[in-house]
Amino acid sequence: MTQHARFTNRSKSGMASLLDEVARVKSRVDDVILNQLLPSSSPLKEVDLLYRMMRDYPQRKGKGLRPFFCVTTCRALGGEESESLLTAACIELFQNWILIHDDIEDSSELRRGEPTLHRKYDEGLAINAGDALHARMWGFLLRNRKPLGEERTLRILEEFSRMVNETTEGQHMELVWVVENKWKLNESDYLEMVSRKTSWYTVTSPCRLGAIVAGAGEEELKKLLEFGTKLGMAFQIQDDALNLVGDAEKYGKESSDDILEGKRTLILLRLLEVAERGEREKVLKIMGKSRNRKTAEDIRYVISLMKKHGAIKYAQGKAAQLLGEALAVLGTVEWKGEKESVELLTRVARYSVERQW
Amino acid sequence: MTQHARFTNRSKSGMASLLDEVARVKSRVDDVILNQLLPSSSPLKEVDLLYRMMRDYPQRKGKGLRPFFCVTTCRALGGEESESLLTAACIELFQNWILIHDDIEDSSELRRGEPTLHRKYDEGLAINAGDALHARMWGFLLRNRKPLGEERTLRILEEFSRMVNETTEGQHMELVWVVENKWKLNESDYLEMVSRKTSWYTVTSPCRLGAIVAGAGEEELKKLLEFGTKLGMAFQIQDDALNLVGDAEKYGKESSDDILEGKRTLILLRLLEVAERGEREKVLKIMGKSRNRKTAEDIRYVISLMKKHGAIKYAQGKAAQLLGEALAVLGTVEWKGEKESVELLTRVARYSVERQW
Repeated sequence: MTQHARFTNRSKSGMASLLDEVARVKSRVDDVILNQLLPSSSPLKEVDLLYRMMRDYPQRKGKGLRPFFCVTTCRALGGEESESLLTAACIELFQNWILIHDDIEDSSELRRGEPTLHRKYDEGLAINAGDALHARMWGFLLRNRKPLGEERTLRILEEFSRMVNETTEGQHMELVWVVENKWKLNESDYLEMVSRKTSWYTVTSPCRLGAIVAGAGEEELKKLLEFGTKLGMAFQIQDDALNLVGDAEKYGKESSDDILEGKRTLILLRLLEVAERGEREKVLKIMGKSRNRKTAEDIRYVISLMKKHGAIKYAQGKAAQLLGEALAVLGTVEWKGEKESVELLTRVARYSVERQW
Repeated sequence: MTQHARFTNRSKSGMASLLDEVARVKSRVDDVILNQLLPSSSPLKEVDLLYRMMRDYPQRKGKGLRPFFCVTTCRALGGEESESLLTAACIELFQNWILIHDDIEDSSELRRGEPTLHRKYDEGLAINAGDALHARMWGFLLRNRKPLGEERTLRILEEFSRMVNETTEGQHMELVWVVENKWKLNESDYLEMVSRKTSWYTVTSPCRLGAIVAGAGEEELKKLLEFGTKLGMAFQIQDDALNLVGDAEKYGKESSDDILEGKRTLILLRLLEVAERGEREKVLKIMGKSRNRKTAEDIRYVISLMKKHGAIKYAQGKAAQLLGEALAVLGTVEWKGEKESVELLTRVARYSVERQW
C-alpha cells in the first residue's frame, strides 16, 4: 500500500465515522422534535392539517450539521450532550420554519427533493404554518427552564433572538438586491450579507448555544462568534458552488436555482468582475430576466462563463482561506471537554466546506 | 333636560373620557415601540429599508384596544402601569407582524387606510419583515427581566407562546375553509375558529399578561381566559358587521373585503341557514368565485340578502349576548387595584362590541 492510498483510506474511514456521528446526533434530535416537541395530531380536522404541515420539513432528510455543531461544542466545552438536545432541536426548528418562508420568498420549487411546502399545499397556509412553527420554537425553548435553570434559559433565548435578527437582516439584504436589480456589489458586500444570512444560524449560534448550555463564559462566546462567522461564509460559498455543479439529486433542490432566483453569489460577482465587456452585458441581461423567462441555454451560458473564467475555483479558494482562518480561531479556545469532541468539531468544520452535497 | 338626554350626555362624555384614556395609553405604548424598541436607522442602506418596513404598520393609526386591555387589567389588579408598558408594546408588535402576514394570506389591499405592506413594497420582503418583527418581539420581552425578575419574565413568555399558538391555529382554520371551499359549517365551528383566531390576542392574553405583571394568581388567570374568550368572539362578530356596513374610511380596510376574501363570518353562515334555496345557491356560487371575479353587483346582492334575512342583526344579537356573559365573569374577579380601572375595563369591553369602527 502506498503512502497515498493509506492516507486516503484513513481519511475515508475517518469521514465515515464523522458522518455516522452526525447521523447519530441527528437521529436523537429528530426524536426530540417528532416525538417530544411537535404535536402529532388534533381531533379538529383543520388543525390536524396544520400539525402535518409543521412536521413536513422536519421529516424530510436534512444533513443535521447545525444541531451537530451545537451538541459537539457543548461536549467539547465539558457540557452534557443530553442537556443540549432540546436547544439543538430548536435550532433545527428554526431552520425549518425559515426555509418554509424562504422558499416562498425565493419562489423555490423543490426542497430536500420534494415540492416546497407552499407548492404542496397553499401559499397562505404555508406562511401561517411557518409562523406557527416559529412561535412553537420559542415555547419549546422555555422547557430548558427545568433542566438548565432560569439564568441559562434566558441566555439561550437572548442568543436565539440575536440569531433570528441577524438572519432576517441578511435575508432582507439578499432579497432587496434581487428586487431592486442591484449589481454594484463587491466581495465585501457579499460577505457582509452572508455573515448575517448564513453564518449566524448555521455555525455561530449553534456553537454558542452549545457553549451556553455547557456554561462557557464571554471569552469563549466571542471566539465562537469569530469562528462561526468565517466558517459560515465558507459554508455558504461551497453551497453556492454545489448549487451550480453539485449532484442535484443529492442536493435536493433544482440545479442552478440560484441563477434562476437571481442570487448574487460570490461566484457570479467574481464572474462579473473578470468577464469581458460583452460577456458581462449578456450575463446581466440574463440575470435581469424574471425566473420563468430564463432559458436552459441562459443557465448553461452563465455556468460555462463561470468555468471559463475560473470563478467557481476562485470562490472555492476563498472558502478554503476562510476555513483556514476559522480553524485557527478554534485552536485558541480553551476546551474543557473530551478531546474527541474537539476533534469532531474540527472535522465537521472541514467537512462543511469540503462536502459534495 | 329629559332623563334620556341626560343619560345620553353622561354616556357621551363617559365615552369621550374612555377614548381619551385609550389614546393616552396608546401614546405611551407607541412611544415605547417607536423610541425605545424598534431600531430607527441603519448605516447599511438595505437594512435601513427593513427597519422602515418594520416601523410601517406600528406608525399607522390603530385603536390601541389590546394594549389598553393589558395596562388596565394590570392596574385593576393592583399593578403599576409603568411595569406593564413593555409587555403591552409587545402585544402591539404581535398584532403588527401577524397583520403583515395575514394581509398576504388574505390578499388584502388596504390596511389602516394605506396599501398593505406587501403591496407597498414586495411580497417576499414583507414576509421577511414580518418574521423580523416577530423575532424582535421575543427579544424585547426579555427586557422585562430587569424590572420584573426572571420568574415573571418567563411566565410572560409562556403566555405569549400560548397566544401565538392559538392565533396561528385559528388563522389556519379560517384559511383552510377558504382554500377547500368548505361550507358545511355552523355557528359553533365559527365560534371555535374565532376563539382561537381573535380572542386570544385581542382580549384573553392582553388581560392575562396585565394580570401576570400585577402578580395575579391562577384563579384570576382562569377567569380572564373565560372573559377574554367570550369578549373576543363578540369583538370579532362586531368587526365582521362593520366590515359590511361600517364607515370604510374610518375602518381603514376595503369595504366588504370579507366577502371578497371568502371569509366565513357568523353573518354569512346565518344567511346560508335561513335563506331560501335559490338564494342560498346563488350566494354559494358568488362566494366560490375567486376574489377578482366577484363583481360589485355580487357584493351588493349578498349584503342585501343579509339585511333582508336579518343576518346582521342576528349576529349582533349574539355579540350582545356574549358581551353580557363576559361582563358577568368580570364581576366575579377579586380586583385589588383602583376602582376606576375596573370601571374602565368594563367600559372598554362594552365599547369593543358597540364601537362603530
